[in-house]
Amino acid sequence: MSAGNSIGKDFVFTCFGESHGKCVGAIIDGCPAGLSFWKKDIQLELDRRIPSKREIVSARVEKDSVEILSGVFEGRTTGAPICALTRNRDARSSEYRQTKDLLRPGHADYSARIRYRNFNDYRGGGRFSGRMTVAFIMAGAVAKKLLRRFNVNIAAYTVAIGGIELRREPTIDEIERRFDNPVRCPDPDTAKIMEEAIMNAKAEGDSLGGIVQCIATNVPPGLGQPIFDSLDADLAKMLFNIPAVKGVEVGAGFKSAEMKGSEFNDFYSIREGKITTLTNNAGGIQGGISSGMPISIRVAIKPTSSIGKKQKTVDLSRMKDTIIEVKGRHDPCIVPKAVSVVESSIALILADHMLRAGAIPKVLAEE
Amino acid sequence: MSAGNSIGKDFVFTCFGESHGKCVGAIIDGCPAGLSFWKKDIQLELDRRIPSKREIVSARVEKDSVEILSGVFEGRTTGAPICALTRNRDARSSEYRQTKDLLRPGHADYSARIRYRNFNDYRGGGRFSGRMTVAFIMAGAVAKKLLRRFNVNIAAYTVAIGGIELRREPTIDEIERRFDNPVRCPDPDTAKIMEEAIMNAKAEGDSLGGIVQCIATNVPPGLGQPIFDSLDADLAKMLFNIPAVKGVEVGAGFKSAEMKGSEFNDFYSIREGKITTLTNNAGGIQGGISSGMPISIRVAIKPTSSIGKKQKTVDLSRMKDTIIEVKGRHDPCIVPKAVSVVESSIALILADHMLRAGAIPKVLAEE
Amino acid sequence: MSAGNSIGKDFVFTCFGESHGKCVGAIIDGCPAGLSFWKKDIQLELDRRIPSKREIVSARVEKDSVEILSGVFEGRTTGAPICALTRNRDARSSEYRQTKDLLRPGHADYSARIRYRNFNDYRGGGRFSGRMTVAFIMAGAVAKKLLRRFNVNIAAYTVAIGGIELRREPTIDEIERRFDNPVRCPDPDTAKIMEEAIMNAKAEGDSLGGIVQCIATNVPPGLGQPIFDSLDADLAKMLFNIPAVKGVEVGAGFKSAEMKGSEFNDFYSIREGKITTLTNNAGGIQGGISSGMPISIRVAIKPTSSIGKKQKTVDLSRMKDTIIEVKGRHDPCIVPKAVSVVESSIALILADHMLRAGAIPKVLAEE
Amino acid sequence: MSAGNSIGKDFVFTCFGESHGKCVGAIIDGCPAGLSFWKKDIQLELDRRIPSKREIVSARVEKDSVEILSGVFEGRTTGAPICALTRNRDARSSEYRQTKDLLRPGHADYSARIRYRNFNDYRGGGRFSGRMTVAFIMAGAVAKKLLRRFNVNIAAYTVAIGGIELRREPTIDEIERRFDNPVRCPDPDTAKIMEEAIMNAKAEGDSLGGIVQCIATNVPPGLGQPIFDSLDADLAKMLFNIPAVKGVEVGAGFKSAEMKGSEFNDFYSIREGKITTLTNNAGGIQGGISSGMPISIRVAIKPTSSIGKKQKTVDLSRMKDTIIEVKGRHDPCIVPKAVSVVESSIALILADHMLRAGAIPKVLAEE
Repeated sequence: MSAGNSIGKDFVFTCFGESHGKCVGAIIDGCPAGLSFWKKDIQLELDRRIPSKREIVSARVEKDSVEILSGVFEGRTTGAPICALTRNRDARSSEYRQTKDLLRPGHADYSARIRYRNFNDYRGGGRFSGRMTVAFIMAGAVAKKLLRRFNVNIAAYTVAIGGIELRREPTIDEIERRFDNPVRCPDPDTAKIMEEAIMNAKAEGDSLGGIVQCIATNVPPGLGQPIFDSLDADLAKMLFNIPAVKGVEVGAGFKSAEMKGSEFNDFYSIREGKITTLTNNAGGIQGGISSGMPISIRVAIKPTSSIGKKQKTVDLSRMKDTIIEVKGRHDPCIVPKAVSVVESSIALILADHMLRAGAIPKVLAEE
Repeated sequence: MSAGNSIGKDFVFTCFGESHGKCVGAIIDGCPAGLSFWKKDIQLELDRRIPSKREIVSARVEKDSVEILSGVFEGRTTGAPICALTRNRDARSSEYRQTKDLLRPGHADYSARIRYRNFNDYRGGGRFSGRMTVAFIMAGAVAKKLLRRFNVNIAAYTVAIGGIELRREPTIDEIERRFDNPVRCPDPDTAKIMEEAIMNAKAEGDSLGGIVQCIATNVPPGLGQPIFDSLDADLAKMLFNIPAVKGVEVGAGFKSAEMKGSEFNDFYSIREGKITTLTNNAGGIQGGISSGMPISIRVAIKPTSSIGKKQKTVDLSRMKDTIIEVKGRHDPCIVPKAVSVVESSIALILADHMLRAGAIPKVLAEE
Repeated sequence: MSAGNSIGKDFVFTCFGESHGKCVGAIIDGCPAGLSFWKKDIQLELDRRIPSKREIVSARVEKDSVEILSGVFEGRTTGAPICALTRNRDARSSEYRQTKDLLRPGHADYSARIRYRNFNDYRGGGRFSGRMTVAFIMAGAVAKKLLRRFNVNIAAYTVAIGGIELRREPTIDEIERRFDNPVRCPDPDTAKIMEEAIMNAKAEGDSLGGIVQCIATNVPPGLGQPIFDSLDADLAKMLFNIPAVKGVEVGAGFKSAEMKGSEFNDFYSIREGKITTLTNNAGGIQGGISSGMPISIRVAIKPTSSIGKKQKTVDLSRMKDTIIEVKGRHDPCIVPKAVSVVESSIALILADHMLRAGAIPKVLAEE
Repeated sequence: MSAGNSIGKDFVFTCFGESHGKCVGAIIDGCPAGLSFWKKDIQLELDRRIPSKREIVSARVEKDSVEILSGVFEGRTTGAPICALTRNRDARSSEYRQTKDLLRPGHADYSARIRYRNFNDYRGGGRFSGRMTVAFIMAGAVAKKLLRRFNVNIAAYTVAIGGIELRREPTIDEIERRFDNPVRCPDPDTAKIMEEAIMNAKAEGDSLGGIVQCIATNVPPGLGQPIFDSLDADLAKMLFNIPAVKGVEVGAGFKSAEMKGSEFNDFYSIREGKITTLTNNAGGIQGGISSGMPISIRVAIKPTSSIGKKQKTVDLSRMKDTIIEVKGRHDPCIVPKAVSVVESSIALILADHMLRAGAIPKVLAEE
């Protein structure tokens, strides 16, 4: 029965709102006072979330417009909780009412009914809708602004969609241009093929999943609170809270299971007076603590649950097996949107651990 | 600077102790009063952790003997914190003193020094030693006893070591006999090959990683506190806190990234009057809430960091590149021990979420 | 630097907003799904907060109108976070800008400047304004509705203002009519004298403090999580967070310091088959756990900080001693408003401990 | 059902053990690495807890000897959890077994039975024994050592016992010698009278309560995390968790209820270039944040529950009213011991808030 809608310890993000309710909202508690912050810092991130090529995403027109309700005064954070809100506009709830007793495969319809004893707001998936991630983006915008004060840089991008994989390391330059194409893959050629795959799946009334990679550079060594608030543990927790995430790996990840110690171990070496490692199989985290090397994480995204094809399911009103055709406007692939969400999620955890390490006051003082 | 050595919300596990200090200890706070519990409930789990075939594990003789210091009275939990302790015996610290300025590749030596400003107890890896998992086992024993009152069953087992993979689903019977062989693989033939691979790696002064699978059956639907204390998120967080874990996947995991929605979605169907799904790609968790299907998780374990081979590293006392030969007695593969640790870790989180769902009092009342 | 704007463990109240910002808001996370709840449940409490006789309170016209943004669907809580909001209307901020460098005696001006390094929203006291208690009232309305499902009854009332004390126990009937007079004292004659005292203080440009008593009846025995989340400890913590509270006592409170054990101890006795005590010096809490006897708490409220009289202070812009005349519209006595806030605060903690005790599901199921 | 045996956010104190179990233990999680710390730092505090004049305290011989199990290495804290343990020696449990169904007036016997469904360790009061405060002392010793690095000074002393009150402000010198007399009152003459009062109460088979005052000087301004982790709120919470505390007041406390605003308000003034106030009715805390003035708190302690006199009670085994004569060795007045406990408790909260304010690293770096 206990509460679970907040995450973070010193930089605490609380998410409220529903898919077809009045709004989606985010509270950030713990952001230090004095950070220069404006509405546009959030709005830019919200705009970037939605690929411009509307064919590959949901037909729901979600031009989200943020309102900041508290915590910012004269262009600076005050140290009080920041509340940011986006009103829902284009919700069409009637479709959901008609089919509310048909469990949609891949969705949380059944588990949510049990958990909330049928009282959850089921319209559009309610709290389980991808729309909730608008709050992640809003909160992430505060985290990113804070991290920029420390020169920490975070970039997520698509490395696989529907089995089509980017097999080489993209350049920094390519990564910076990842939002230029609708699938957010740093390689334009691969992006083209991914895009086609999505359009094909859409045509079939089907959907695709994929893999998002995230790299955080310039993260200072020493972040993380082992044993149980390890940096990788907190990152994984946050990422698994994103709807559709089924796997998280750090550094070499599952490949490390096939490696020998002599292959996996990152050898230390001094480069320009600094301790570095020659490889980065650890993914920038050793013993749950950042090592100063880039943090590298990969996240598996399942294919969109809502598809046009007929599927077997149960009609709860009659407790009988039946067939469902899911209506509504859905993304044939949510990986492109997930890129922004993964990026924001990682920013939120890094900001929290920065504050937990006591890193902030000095930097803001210099502002 | 903040504390991070506790995990769980209603069933809280705190871990203390060091590899070469006086002891490893666990506190469980929140275990309901009235649970039948004895020292042997922990001792059995501790004994089972160490494979009988000593060749494949560390030569350190760790016959661990538990002492319960509080929270149990006349064979029952009292509702007060349970403190369980295992004294360290066979620690040989002198080796570590000599080489304390040589960063051991794969270990947390560097990140820990930064985090604790050189004051951490480095002997045997200190808090970063696999020995800390003895506390996971002790706490997990309480969780398992509690879960048994609900008929929840948890079984972890090895599915891959050094690239050798068990490619078929083992039977329930085989899973039950997983501790009969030293690598804890349910298939005896595959187990044999894995064992040989470990011995070969050992002979080369090298080490192997692998994958542990865990299945929890009979978990009631409705566990999990989304958005941020989702069941999969809390499980992933706990698992990433186990030393050497580099990846976690739930259900189809990373494979889901290559599947279409029509392949991935688990179709609902009524079986014997109960809502079930025909497949279990979700791994028993939908929208962060248990669905009643078996919970299925896979964990990637990196190869043991300490290897006999020479490795490049840095000597901090001289700030120079150098070569290290790691001494000490080390497991050529920690996957067999990790099986117990993964099992305990998952038990701890499930027990916490059982309590968070308010499930306990009635059951204990019937005892 | 860490966050502190949430309280409660299973029923979590987060407060946001500022005195002269856009709004005051409350998030309730953890309210069980299925509770019948409407906007009017909050509105009634907000209306009751302000004494009808406007002379004894601030001239600021605060007809607060609540908006529920999330967590309620078709007249029932959904289990998702409930966000309730009251817009600020009648804020006159210009006065505060002119005198922002003059520390107002009795206020948090100085400590807040240090804590938030001058970036706090100082207008109207910002986060330190009594206006923040509007959020306490909104959140308390949810708690009260929940507690009513268990027949728990909470009543706060004024027992002293400016040294004028109600020296006898009021009857249940009198307590029920406490909101009939503007000072919320159950005895109408004493209320009259208190009212006059307030008007006199106002005429002098001065202010008065007082004592609020709160009684909670029908609280089941067994609530409280000692050692550190004792029921009295959590109540005291919540109460000290109300602006202007300088003391909290439970049962006989400070008088117990003068009593002998034989006088203080509440003797047990069976009454109508139930365990009760013949006296209630413990105030319904033994060892940090509710005993089933009425919970009785007294709260000391300091006189309103803002007074018309000239006061010595410091001008921070010139770092010089000076004289201040505090402008603005202020209550000559906040005790009448504090009655509602104390009642709400105690409801919030009791609701949290009800949920922590696992008490909810059954009761809602019967609804 | 949830856990409640930890307190603090960045400096977390967990208490385990029972009065007649094996030990009383404390875990401190979050103490920064590098603090010089030795067993004797705790032992001195434990020794000082027990007045030398044995007549006025319990006859139970509690020469407590601390053992540090973890978190300290080569005379310095490591950043890992510190576990400190005191074994119980002189427990005589048989007396408690015989009368376990007779509810002892003033004790938590009844509320604890309900809370823990009869499974609590009732011997010697179990978790509700004053003996638990040994853990407060042990943890407090770490907090005090840390605070000394910031020159924060904390002194608690007795100001009232059984109605005999110290009516004047003691000098700093007198406060420093408070442990010279068995009642810990800074004024030797008043101490003498208090001592006699205790001996008289003892002779009658009765007990006395009292009031402990605590002053913390040199606390930097800016500590506290309003709205809900206000410094006074966290202090009050901690203090109410001490067995026998029935009231807490800050600064003028309950007296402020009788004061006018013009009397209560502390006027600001510059003294030696620093912002101070001419009076300290606020008790060093404004708006939940320390102001830099001395923190002043008073705590009401009820008379010892166990008395020799016959008392009415209930025999649960027969569900009948009866008479009880409480056996065992008890303090006629616990106020002298409470002085150490109040001091430790306040140190724990101040240390936590120091860390939460990010104050530590720089100071330790200078060591």
